Order: sequence, then structure tokens, then C-alpha cells
Amino acid sequence: MITRSPLLGEFMGTFVLMLLGNGVCAAVSLKRSKAEGGGWMVVAAGWAFAVLCGIFVSQLFGSPDAHMNPAFTLAFAIKAQSFTKLLPYTLVQIAGAFCGAAATWLFYLPHWAATEDPATKLGVFATGPAIRNYPQNLFCEFLATFVLVLVAGGMSSKLVLTTGAASGLSPLLVSFLIWSVGLSLGATTGYAINPARDLGPRLAHALLPIAGKGGSDWAYAWVPIAGPMLGAGLAGWVLFLIGA
Amino acid sequence: MITRSPLLGEFMGTFVLMLLGNGVCAAVSLKRSKAEGGGWMVVAAGWAFAVLCGIFVSQLFGSPDAHMNPAFTLAFAIKAQSFTKLLPYTLVQIAGAFCGAAATWLFYLPHWAATEDPATKLGVFATGPAIRNYPQNLFCEFLATFVLVLVAGGMSSKLVLTTGAASGLSPLLVSFLIWSVGLSLGATTGYAINPARDLGPRLAHALLPIAGKGGSDWAYAWVPIAGPMLGAGLAGWVLFLIGA
Amino acid sequence: MITRSPLLGEFMGTFVLMLLGNGVCAAVSLKRSKAEGGGWMVVAAGWAFAVLCGIFVSQLFGSPDAHMNPAFTLAFAIKAQSFTKLLPYTLVQIAGAFCGAAATWLFYLPHWAATEDPATKLGVFATGPAIRNYPQNLFCEFLATFVLVLVAGGMSSKLVLTTGAASGLSPLLVSFLIWSVGLSLGATTGYAINPARDLGPRLAHALLPIAGKGGSDWAYAWVPIAGPMLGAGLAGWVLFLIGA
Amino acid sequence: MITRSPLLGEFMGTFVLMLLGNGVCAAVSLKRSKAEGGGWMVVAAGWAFAVLCGIFVSQLFGSPDAHMNPAFTLAFAIKAQSFTKLLPYTLVQIAGAFCGAAATWLFYLPHWAATEDPATKLGVFATGPAIRNYPQNLFCEFLATFVLVLVAGGMSSKLVLTTGAASGLSPLLVSFLIWSVGLSLGATTGYAINPARDLGPRLAHALLPIAGKGGSDWAYAWVPIAGPMLGAGLAGWVLFLIGA
Repeated sequence: MITRSPLLGEFMGTFVLMLLGNGVCAAVSLKRSKAEGGGWMVVAAGWAFAVLCGIFVSQLFGSPDAHMNPAFTLAFAIKAQSFTKLLPYTLVQIAGAFCGAAATWLFYLPHWAATEDPATKLGVFATGPAIRNYPQNLFCEFLATFVLVLVAGGMSSKLVLTTGAASGLSPLLVSFLIWSVGLSLGATTGYAINPARDLGPRLAHALLPIAGKGGSDWAYAWVPIAGPMLGAGLAGWVLFLIGA
Repeated sequence: MITRSPLLGEFMGTFVLMLLGNGVCAAVSLKRSKAEGGGWMVVAAGWAFAVLCGIFVSQLFGSPDAHMNPAFTLAFAIKAQSFTKLLPYTLVQIAGAFCGAAATWLFYLPHWAATEDPATKLGVFATGPAIRNYPQNLFCEFLATFVLVLVAGGMSSKLVLTTGAASGLSPLLVSFLIWSVGLSLGATTGYAINPARDLGPRLAHALLPIAGKGGSDWAYAWVPIAGPMLGAGLAGWVLFLIGA
Repeated sequence: MITRSPLLGEFMGTFVLMLLGNGVCAAVSLKRSKAEGGGWMVVAAGWAFAVLCGIFVSQLFGSPDAHMNPAFTLAFAIKAQSFTKLLPYTLVQIAGAFCGAAATWLFYLPHWAATEDPATKLGVFATGPAIRNYPQNLFCEFLATFVLVLVAGGMSSKLVLTTGAASGLSPLLVSFLIWSVGLSLGATTGYAINPARDLGPRLAHALLPIAGKGGSDWAYAWVPIAGPMLGAGLAGWVLFLIGA
Repeated sequence: MITRSPLLGEFMGTFVLMLLGNGVCAAVSLKRSKAEGGGWMVVAAGWAFAVLCGIFVSQLFGSPDAHMNPAFTLAFAIKAQSFTKLLPYTLVQIAGAFCGAAATWLFYLPHWAATEDPATKLGVFATGPAIRNYPQNLFCEFLATFVLVLVAGGMSSKLVLTTGAASGLSPLLVSFLIWSVGLSLGATTGYAINPARDLGPRLAHALLPIAGKGGSDWAYAWVPIAGPMLGAGLAGWVLFLIGA
């Protein structure tokens, strides 16, 4: 028997999230992929559905929270004023993201050598800014994650008339929320909006023997950690203050 | 504690609506955006999901109505024959839209200087006609908003068998309705279908120090106010007459 | 007061269906439209959402059936072995489609003169074959409508575990069914799959003073009538035999 | 009367699945199709909705399982430790897929002669690798199907809070799961993720008198059989171990 647990659920959910999420990035950007040049709609929809799938896997393996994102865990910790989950969830989310990124690497194995540009390869794993400016990039990750958590909080709040929780629609609504953030607020920094989503795959990029890879842009790595945590922290505080 | 109220809900919902809505316009049209050239599907889907997110935020902060649009407020005022909400809702909706547009400006800050064409920049904020002809443009905004309100009235009417209200699907259905209007009736005037959605951001465009901006096309500004209010007024009257 | 009735519902629903459906065709094909060249995904999604909107309007004005399509009316008449609705529904559906097409013409009024090709203009109104071959085109309309009605029958059948009816999802499911038929079986004849959808707008094209229009291709007009009626008839018979 | 049965349901569901699925491949790749060049989003959405439609038809004709895929049948056989359905379901699924592919051929009949490239024509029927490497291609089909079955298992598990089963959303959720796998993991091998989906149409390609066809690439045919069965087998075993 496999013993279900919240930590296993967070690990498995984040694993599937990142295999599918990094997978769609690989699909549209690696050479000789059948989806090469698929465009922004494919990327945004792909990440939305990746979250949908991750939620079900996360719950299946034992995490009813299905956060898959340390920023969500922080926000709901602040909302609930209970921080015991924060550290262990964060660690397994990063581990799950690392393994998901590694699985994406294996899935697209012959396509790495077929793709010349090292920046394209890094872009499959980690996010990067369209225009590099750390305070500005930090602000984007902050604001996008603030909106993400605020809307997600509304979608599951007892204060809201037509919550997803009441109707069983939650995973679908969250999926469309991710789609929304991607389409509207993803075009400046690539919308990490999740420290594990960026750090895990960046570690994978640094450690795995990816054909013809370049640097892992560690100078930028703090932005998609700090921005989402600050944005989620503020949103969690607002959700607490409002009694959501 | 944050005190929830309908006015706060309308303000916050319209803020998120416009940050995400103007955000997707910026994403597809500003230079060096990762979504540049994303196309009409991205725009229409982005606005649809922006409304979905706005609804949950609006309800979260205290407005079960979640109108975020003076035209909706007018229509349901006519339907209910009660006009007390109309003026205060309209004012906070415009204020929320102004602030959402300002947030979009900050979110895409380095991209304004990177984009040369002033008309493109205005297009991120306010709507404009594909072919300038004020009576015709007015008719388009009138008819698109009439359809919008009529269908939305159907989606929430006790006369309809499978309402969103009964199933908790309302926000999702309204979101797809926005998608529909965008795809089918958005290509002539950019489908304001909401006076606050156009006036708030136009004010923001006029007042904010946007790099390399041009005029705010105030000659057109009355069209996306008058058209939607007339269309919504007629639809609200029909909903009243039909006992929806 | 407006008196609700099934015939008014069918008229109004088909009107909105065709305004939105012909609208998305105009959006992607007329010159100087903001959605010009939007592509097949825009068309297929636009028609799917047009049906979604039409369903709610049809029910709002008094038709719980919300057929908006003589082929559906025929199929469910055969299934129920009751043909009293067939003629009156068909007539108001064609009338609603005619008026919806006329409204589309007015909505895009300055764009007709801006578009040179007469075939493009006809294509906004009526369907036409990618490769002209009447028996083959008839077969396509027959088979696409057969699948349409069969799946729709499944979506509302008491024999099916997770019907849309039970969950209030029916209009959404039917909308995705239209999307499916458009993407997969729409590329050969433009998927009329509805005699009213083709005949009403073709009449509008013939009668309205559209700038620079050509012929209305009446030689083809029988195909999108006969094909859908035959396909729906067979599917209705199957639904009857199976006790759906 | 038509006698409903699980085998008839699996046959009819797989027939509709493949008519719509191969249909969207034909739509985007055959010459003179109105959807030619529609791109990856059209393909992925088309297959997702094809599964949605197939599910309802499968249930309508008597299969509440609505597997339409021997890999699913294997996985749920392992989960339930009961293998009586495996052989008969597999046979009728392959037969349904064969007939669906044949119907697609007839639907697009004049377009085969209009299309020169034999590989394009085979691609409408059967899957093929972007980069040919059998062990790697096998791994892709294995992993994509493993994820598919795991997520589908979550979507219908009593262990999950917001299952599709509870809310009647199952067919819709499975449809979005297919969309996800297509967008993220479909670009290397064309995501058979279903032995019947590949073998049935490949047989049809080999046997039917398709204008200007080339070989049916039988050397590859074992990959989209073995990969999905191995991936589904492992996922079914995990679902069993976890008590899903």
C-alpha cells in the first residue's frame, strides 16, 4: 500500500504540475517539437490545465490543500494564523518541482541537442524577465501573485455566493484563474507566481546534463522567490483582515 | 479588520477587472512583451477571465452584485425599478477602473518607452473604433451591450431552466458570455460595453506620465459611455417587461 | 408586458445565435476588423459561445427547448414521435436567423465597403464548400449533424450517468459540442448543421443592400438544408430506438 | 429497438472519438481545408472535445465506463483486480477506432487527392514521432499515459474532495485533462496515449484506398501500443495501492 499524506500529496501534485507546465514550455520553444511556435495562448492554457491536473493528483495522494506553491501555503498560513505547514510544504513542493522539471528534461530528451539557443533551454525550466530590471520584475511578481491569491481566496471564501467549493467547481475555477494571470500578467516576467515553480526547475537546469545548456541565471533567482512570497503574504493578510 | 461593503466590492472588483483586462491588451500590443502579437483570441479570453476574477473579488469585498459596470447597474436598476445604487456604484466603478489602469501602467512600466506608437499605448487603456463613424460606433456599443445584458439576464433569471445561479456556474457562464461578445461583436469598436471600463482608463491615460504617450482621444469618449448605457437601459427594460 | 412563448423564444434565441455567429465570421474575415485573420479557433469558439448565449435567450423568452435549429426540432420530434412543433419552430427559427444576419450586417456596416471580395462577404452570411461536390458536401453536412444530434441526445439522456441536465451544465456542454463539431468537422463545408443558420442569412444576403456583394450561391443552398435534416432525422430515429 | 450494451457503447464512443479526433487532424493538415494551418491549439482542443463527445455517446449506447481506450480499461482492471472486460473492450475499441478513421476518410474525401505529401496523410490517421528513437518514443507514450491515468483516477476517486463524479463535471474534467496532455506532452510523439486510437486508424490507413497514400509506418506501430499499456498499467497499480 502507498500511504497517503499531505507531504506526499504536495510532492506528487507539484511533480505533475511541473512536468505539464515545463512540458508546455518545451513544446512551444524546442526545435523539432510538433508544437513549436504554438504561441502565448498555448503556454497560458497549458499552465492552467497543468494546475488543474496537479490539484487532483495532490488531493489523490493526500493533500486536500493542493497548494503546490509555497506562496499559497504562506498566504493561507497567514489567513489561518498557523504556520506549521509552511516549512515542510515548501520543501516538498520544491522537491516535487525539481523532479517534475527533470522528468520534462527526459521527456524531451532528443530535443535539447536539436535546439541551439541556451536561453531557450533555460526558458523551458525557469522564468526570466522580458526587460531586466530587478525592482520592476519584483513588483510584477509581487502584484501578479497578490491578485492570484486574492482571487483564489474569493473562489473558496464562505463570503462569496457562488464559490467553487459549494459546486465542486474549485479546481476548474482555479485553472481559469491561472489562465487569466498568464494571459494578462505573465508577459513581463513569465509569471513564476510560485517560488517552487521557479527554484526547483532552476536547480534541475543547473544540475542536469542538458545538452548545450548555458548558465542558470542565478542572479535573477531571488526575484521569483521574493516577489510571490511578498504578494501572497499581503494577500493572505487581506484575506485574514476581511474574515474570508 | 477590513469592513466589507458593496461599494468596496465594486471598487476592488473593477480594479482587478481592469488590471487584468488592460493587462492583456498591454501583453499583446506593447513591444518586448512575451505575448506580443498574441492575437484576438488572447485578448478575448483575457477579458473573459478578467471578468471571472473580478466577480470573485467583488463578492469577496462585499458586493454580491459584482456588476463592475455602470451599464449592468443601470439595467438591473431598471429591471428592479430601484435606482439608489446607480450613482454610487458608477462612481466607485470608475474609480476602480482608473486605479486598475494605473496598476497596469506600473506593471508594464519599462514597456511604454519600448513601444513607439502612441495609438498603441492609448489602445491598452481605452477603446477606439476600427472605422471612425460616431453614429455607427454608438450603434455597435449599443447593440453589443444590449446582447450582453439580455444574455446575462437570462443566465440569472428564474425563468430559465438551467441557470448559473442554481448550479453555482454563474461566474463561469458570464465569463464565457464576455468571451462571446468579444469574439463576435468586439472587432469594430473594441467592445467597451462598460462606461467605467473606458472612462476610468482614459482618465488614467490622460493623467499618468506615460512615456511617449499621445492624446487621449476625448472626442470619442462619449461613445463608449452613451452606447452601453442605452443598450443596457433597453435590455433592462425588456427584462422588466418579461418579468425575468 | 412581453408575453413569453416557445415561438418567441425560438425567434429571439436564433436571432442572438446568428448575430453572434455571423458576427464572428465578419470579425475574422472583413477588412479593417480588429480581429481580421483571427483564424479557425476564433471562428469555432465564437460559434460555440454564440450557441451558449442563444440558449439562455431562447429560454428567457419562453422556449425551454432552445433548439434554434430545425434539425434539432426534427430530431426531437422523431424521438418523441410528435411533430406539431416542427413547422412553426422552423419558420420562426428561419425568421430569427434572417433578422440576426441583418443585425450583423448593420453592426459591421462600414466594413462591407472596405472589403473587396464578394465571396468573403457571402461567407459571413452563408456556408459554402471548400471543394464543391454536392453529394460529398451533402454527406459532410449529414454526418456532422448526425454526430451533433447524437451527442446532444446523450448529453440530455436519462440513460447517461453524468448528464448536463442533472448538473445544470447542459448549455455549457452543448456549447463545447458545437466547438468540437466546428474544429473537427467544420472545415469542409463550413458546418451549417442547421438549415435556419444557412437559409436565413442567405436570404438576408440576397435581399439586403450589402455594399459590393455578389451572388448568393443559391445552387448550393439545398445542401445545408437537406444534409442537416437527413442527419438529424437519422440521429433522432436512433435516439428513439435506443429509448434515450 | 437498439439493445444497449457496454460493448456497443465502447464501439460507438470510440467511433465518435476517432471521427472527431482524426477529423481535427485532417482539418488542420489537409490542403484546401478551411482550417488548414490551424495549429497546435486547434489540434489539442479538438481532441479534448472529441473525448468529451465520445464519453456521452459511449454512455448513451450502454457503457457507463466510457473508456474508449484499452489503456484505461487495463488501468481500471488492475485497480479493480478484475480483467474480464479487458479483451472484449479492447477489440471493440479498436474496431470503433477503425470505423471512425474510415468515416474521417470519407468525410474529407476530395481533400486526400488535393494533398500531395503522403506523410501528412498518414499523420491524419496514426501518430508518429517528431524525432524517431524508439526507446525514447516509448518512454514519452509511457509517461504521458501514466500521467493521464493518474489524473483521471484522481478525478473520479472517492479520496478527492471535489471530484467530477460528485458534481457531474467528470466528462468536462476529463476533456480538459486530454487538452492538458496534448498541449504539454503531445509534441514529441503526437500523444497516442491509447492503443486503439493509433492501431485502428493505422489499419484503416493501410486498408482503405486513400488517394496518393504512402506506407503505414508499421515499424513504429508497436510504440503507441506498448507505451500506453505500460504507463496505464503502472498508474492502475498505483491507484490500486493507494486505494483510490
